[in-house]
Amino acid sequence: MIPPAHGGRLVNRLASPSERARRESESRDLLRISPFIDQVYDAEKIGIGAYSPLEGFQDGPTLRSVIKNGRLPNDLPWTMPIVLTPSGNANEAVVRSVRPGDQVGLNDTQGSLFAVLHVEEKYPFPRSEVARLVYATTDPKHPNVADLLAAGETALAGRVDLLRRLDLPTGALELTPAETRAEFERRGWRNVAGYQTRNVPHTAHEYLQRCTLEREDVDGLFVHPVLGRLKKGDYRPEIILEAYQALVQNYYPPHRVLLASLGISMRYGGPKATLFLAIVRKNYGCGLYIVGRDQAGVGSYYEPFACQRIFDEYDIGVTPLKYAETFFCRDCGGMASERTCGHTADRRLNTSQTYIREALAKGEALPSEIIRPEVARVLARGDVLLTE
Amino acid sequence: MIPPAHGGRLVNRLASPSERARRESESRDLLRISPFIDQVYDAEKIGIGAYSPLEGFQDGPTLRSVIKNGRLPNDLPWTMPIVLTPSGNANEAVVRSVRPGDQVGLNDTQGSLFAVLHVEEKYPFPRSEVARLVYATTDPKHPNVADLLAAGETALAGRVDLLRRLDLPTGALELTPAETRAEFERRGWRNVAGYQTRNVPHTAHEYLQRCTLEREDVDGLFVHPVLGRLKKGDYRPEIILEAYQALVQNYYPPHRVLLASLGISMRYGGPKATLFLAIVRKNYGCGLYIVGRDQAGVGSYYEPFACQRIFDEYDIGVTPLKYAETFFCRDCGGMASERTCGHTADRRLNTSQTYIREALAKGEALPSEIIRPEVARVLARGDVLLTE
Repeated sequence: MIPPAHGGRLVNRLASPSERARRESESRDLLRISPFIDQVYDAEKIGIGAYSPLEGFQDGPTLRSVIKNGRLPNDLPWTMPIVLTPSGNANEAVVRSVRPGDQVGLNDTQGSLFAVLHVEEKYPFPRSEVARLVYATTDPKHPNVADLLAAGETALAGRVDLLRRLDLPTGALELTPAETRAEFERRGWRNVAGYQTRNVPHTAHEYLQRCTLEREDVDGLFVHPVLGRLKKGDYRPEIILEAYQALVQNYYPPHRVLLASLGISMRYGGPKATLFLAIVRKNYGCGLYIVGRDQAGVGSYYEPFACQRIFDEYDIGVTPLKYAETFFCRDCGGMASERTCGHTADRRLNTSQTYIREALAKGEALPSEIIRPEVARVLARGDVLLTE
Repeated sequence: MIPPAHGGRLVNRLASPSERARRESESRDLLRISPFIDQVYDAEKIGIGAYSPLEGFQDGPTLRSVIKNGRLPNDLPWTMPIVLTPSGNANEAVVRSVRPGDQVGLNDTQGSLFAVLHVEEKYPFPRSEVARLVYATTDPKHPNVADLLAAGETALAGRVDLLRRLDLPTGALELTPAETRAEFERRGWRNVAGYQTRNVPHTAHEYLQRCTLEREDVDGLFVHPVLGRLKKGDYRPEIILEAYQALVQNYYPPHRVLLASLGISMRYGGPKATLFLAIVRKNYGCGLYIVGRDQAGVGSYYEPFACQRIFDEYDIGVTPLKYAETFFCRDCGGMASERTCGHTADRRLNTSQTYIREALAKGEALPSEIIRPEVARVLARGDVLLTE
């Protein structure tokens, strides 16, 4: 069944088209903050309900509950801080001047107003405690820890009114939870499996998707790549989307798969990030969620299957589909895992992402056992990885 | 979890080794019946609990309940008659002479005593009504209907004491439900998926097995071919077993798959036979059961997916894993189904069993997309099909 939104009610704080002009005109003279791009994405996602039940940026008690217990103060599982921590001189001047009860305008990355914050609390942001408790490290080489250490020292909490959607390059595929839920209903999908990725599809990913699609308890697959800010060495967002379109359009039955993009920045937080990403997909209408090896990991900060075990600690009302590490086995003649393959490891092709990215960087061709030719053609163009 | 036996308690009516000599000696002078081979198998399966909760051959009220409602008189789902209907002059003379309260010895197919029937009822066996209600046809071209029409006119009901296991060619692999349950426990398997077959493994069968083994809610696969009496055109039992050994030993991880044989005669009864076969596997310890297209079908008597829908009518405490029809798609480059493949039907290899059997009969080589070379080598020997 399509699950209710996390916490029971899908949040919608997006101004209707008829209100928008009035709300923009009312907000024209507000003090403005230009948040870090991650928090621009977050403000929009709060407004469209992707972060239900959150209606705004978390306050101090909520943040403490989230980082210490992985739960909101009402005990609902929630593992990721969603905070507004403006930095830079201009932003910090605004932060100093506002008081609870004030409204502040939020600019998008082009400097245009897109949302309004109802300031409810101003509190010191415990940056290294968040790093330690959420990301399990204070190592500045961890990309999200580096961001945390650069965050403002003061957080602003409060409800967000979204005046308009962001103008993203992937906009046509940036569906709202209400839109995906309506599309699932239209297709008659009751049991939808969400697929998280920040990668182009390899045959290993396709294998998990196919295993999922063959299940009698899955009506459809929702492929939902995170296409907000990624890290150096990740694929560029438009490449990810194009590569997925190549797979979905050339291989899958159209009535069984929906592809949409999720414009949020990636949290490389291993298990806690995985649970967060699953909760977000629940809000988009997924009652099942695919979790392979090392979801949302980076480097070697997280044990590769901790991202599966966290679903045993927190019941979020989503069935995790936990897959083993997969590989192409020459003797099986196809993708397999230790659950299905009785051959020795030396019969496996190296399908690691690192290997594939390095091969790409060197301009080497990739065999079809590792990547579909239609996908490889997208990657063969060069300039496909983020260099900063 | 390993489910309790059907009805709650695993039946065991097999004499212990220490009782056996005494029981055989006590039974030496009983009148004897030599049942049709199917009913020899059934008597043994009753004794080892494979047909739990049955403790003997069904009486008149039970048979009527089974054929009319698909349930035992206590409402427990049970769709298949398990009856003793001796035919032939010698048997019929015995049937005429026995009375409720008597004991009768049962001979195996070699004429040796292996079980004792405690006669509780003697009743006219409604042969064509059973055909119509269970097999949905009275067409004598249906193999089980043909058998029914040749059955004795009088059924003997009553509990069965099994003095010893049958001496079957597949004996080493003829495990009892108590033995498979103990083996599942030993392996730490809680969720075991049962796989029914009366065929040698094609890649289409392997695909369903692999899809099942990749599921996070499956600890192990129990491959349990029916190797009792099959029909003309089916593979010979020892070929099926050898072909499966070739697949299991050469491809699957040993700790994930258990192969055993089930010495019963095949009921080609479509949905009702499928439910019966699932109940039997529940008794062997399976909490999940794989149901593809047209399980236990023959000719075109049964709608190919009726065998899946029957699980919606009867809750037997087993999760059916319902798979779509599968095929090898040249464009996917592997096995797929309409759930996973977006290509047109003309891109599919013909993997029908009929085609494969005909190719074998003509001595044609079969491609590895259809059958594993290790399995093909077993079939290449010739004389692999039953000719009567």
